[in-house]
Amino acid sequence: MVWMIALMPHFEKHVFICTNLRGETDPKGSCARKGSEHVRERFKKELSERGLKGRMRANAAGCLDACEHGCSVVVYPEQVWYGKVTPDDVPEIIEQHLIGGKPVERLLIHDTPRPPKPAK
Amino acid sequence: MVWMIALMPHFEKHVFICTNLRGETDPKGSCARKGSEHVRERFKKELSERGLKGRMRANAAGCLDACEHGCSVVVYPEQVWYGKVTPDDVPEIIEQHLIGGKPVERLLIHDTPRPPKPAK
Repeated sequence: MVWMIALMPHFEKHVFICTNLRGETDPKGSCARKGSEHVRERFKKELSERGLKGRMRANAAGCLDACEHGCSVVVYPEQVWYGKVTPDDVPEIIEQHLIGGKPVERLLIHDTPRPPKPAK
Repeated sequence: MVWMIALMPHFEKHVFICTNLRGETDPKGSCARKGSEHVRERFKKELSERGLKGRMRANAAGCLDACEHGCSVVVYPEQVWYGKVTPDDVPEIIEQHLIGGKPVERLLIHDTPRPPKPAK
């Protein structure tokens, strides 16, 4: 099994940025309307400039189910969640967290645990 | 730090399905043109029917940089990559891997490692 995992694609860090667009009056809000495409572009640019393209990836994502915290970002494999992220926060996330291993505490999402949703 | 992580949103399994659409003649191919939206819908339906909504999430994603293997799917936190996934593969992935912990070997992507891309 180990050799197969080794031959899979592999990103040291895989950053998913919600780029979901909801209607203007949607009470959940919408990451896209809060400028998430600019957040994603900044991640791509800053990763590329640091020679990290291919090792770390900034990925567009559909709704991450954290709409109220948008722009929402989740970093894998450690599943660290960030909220209210702006383009100017990106260099700090990259330097301190993706490279340095220390999540940026001021941007972490602190959520109340939700109960599992019932089956439809 | 531990208590903050505990209060973050948390998915036991977070499944990202590439729904990227490229032009008809794009040599890379395109997960969307290979039916990835149906793969995502099947994941959502099958997770919901098993009462796993809220614990596991099927998420749309932009290009996962594994176009040649589409429909491409990556499962976090373990970063297991699947290729050529069809809707009918979904129950097996859920039962054997997401619930049972054993990746579905016949669908794993076996890739040649790529060198890091140069900075632009």
